[in-house]
Amino acid sequence: MQQIIDFILELDKLKGVTRKTRPLGLTRLENSAEHSWQIALLAWSLADYAAEPVEIDHVIMLLLVHDIGEIDTGDTIVYAEGGWEERKAEELKAVRRIFGLLPAHRAEALLALWQEFEAGETAEAKFANAADRAMPCLLNLANNGQSWRENGIRYEQVINRLSAPINEGCPALWAYMKEKLDAAREQGLFGA
Amino acid sequence: MQQIIDFILELDKLKGVTRKTRPLGLTRLENSAEHSWQIALLAWSLADYAAEPVEIDHVIMLLLVHDIGEIDTGDTIVYAEGGWEERKAEELKAVRRIFGLLPAHRAEALLALWQEFEAGETAEAKFANAADRAMPCLLNLANNGQSWRENGIRYEQVINRLSAPINEGCPALWAYMKEKLDAAREQGLFGA
Repeated sequence: MQQIIDFILELDKLKGVTRKTRPLGLTRLENSAEHSWQIALLAWSLADYAAEPVEIDHVIMLLLVHDIGEIDTGDTIVYAEGGWEERKAEELKAVRRIFGLLPAHRAEALLALWQEFEAGETAEAKFANAADRAMPCLLNLANNGQSWRENGIRYEQVINRLSAPINEGCPALWAYMKEKLDAAREQGLFGA
Repeated sequence: MQQIIDFILELDKLKGVTRKTRPLGLTRLENSAEHSWQIALLAWSLADYAAEPVEIDHVIMLLLVHDIGEIDTGDTIVYAEGGWEERKAEELKAVRRIFGLLPAHRAEALLALWQEFEAGETAEAKFANAADRAMPCLLNLANNGQSWRENGIRYEQVINRLSAPINEGCPALWAYMKEKLDAAREQGLFGA
């Protein structure tokens, strides 16, 4: 029991890992714990639109655990150039440490989920990735491009970085978003 | 698709619903969105100790949706006296409104989950409730009784309010916590 308690208290640190988006109507930055909750429910809500049939409970578990490595590494904006391999190696080290607080069979199960998400090969991982990539963009669309403007993110960067993963996991969502992104460009909601 | 987007953006408001506990090491109050994420992982981690066999994916869904009504009503500390029936009626009204943003089959599924948690009759609802009740107490035990001291919560209130639900859903967790709570009383971590 103590191992489980140590693990869950360690997870508390994800509440302090800030991202670049701000929750609608709030001035503070979003954190990775509340983001993980939201994308789990986004995926559940979108399940009818997955590119391939998915085991939705498995998608939800992928999403609940995929950011836990950020406890040691912090969050990196998806538009960062380069350094992804090093960051992913650091995150793997982090999740081995954090999941390793649990009894072995639990730690192994979480590590397998984390690795499946990162590999991005299963239908569940692709759909989960689409939800994860879409969420900050949906918030930006509802928030006057807040994190795009604050971080100088251009329309082309968003399209280049998001179209493939969202389209691959959830094409109907990408079709919806592409139209909104084009309208946002007309409104000048991107960084320069 | 627009219905799903409207729903997920509405959910963003749960990030602004504050509770009485503070995340470990942070000065701000915890919000109900990050709390929902954490208890889903607490339940998953504790599944071997559930009082009865549970469908853990179902427990996780119960926990991810059970606080959504607080978007309209706010969070109420578990030690509040009276007024629970009115609050629950308000929360039901809230979740009907919020889930109702989704396509009907999705809205009905979420409402059924919310009602199952509130009824507390299935093995899954009992186990989910144990995780939900335990989490703020575990944080207090790790945080010098922060919310107990700030809100004048006494040892007896904690025992009276938590022993039955946690023991019913996860007796091994309650045995662990009871010992820690007794030690915390010796250390004077409760309110007066």
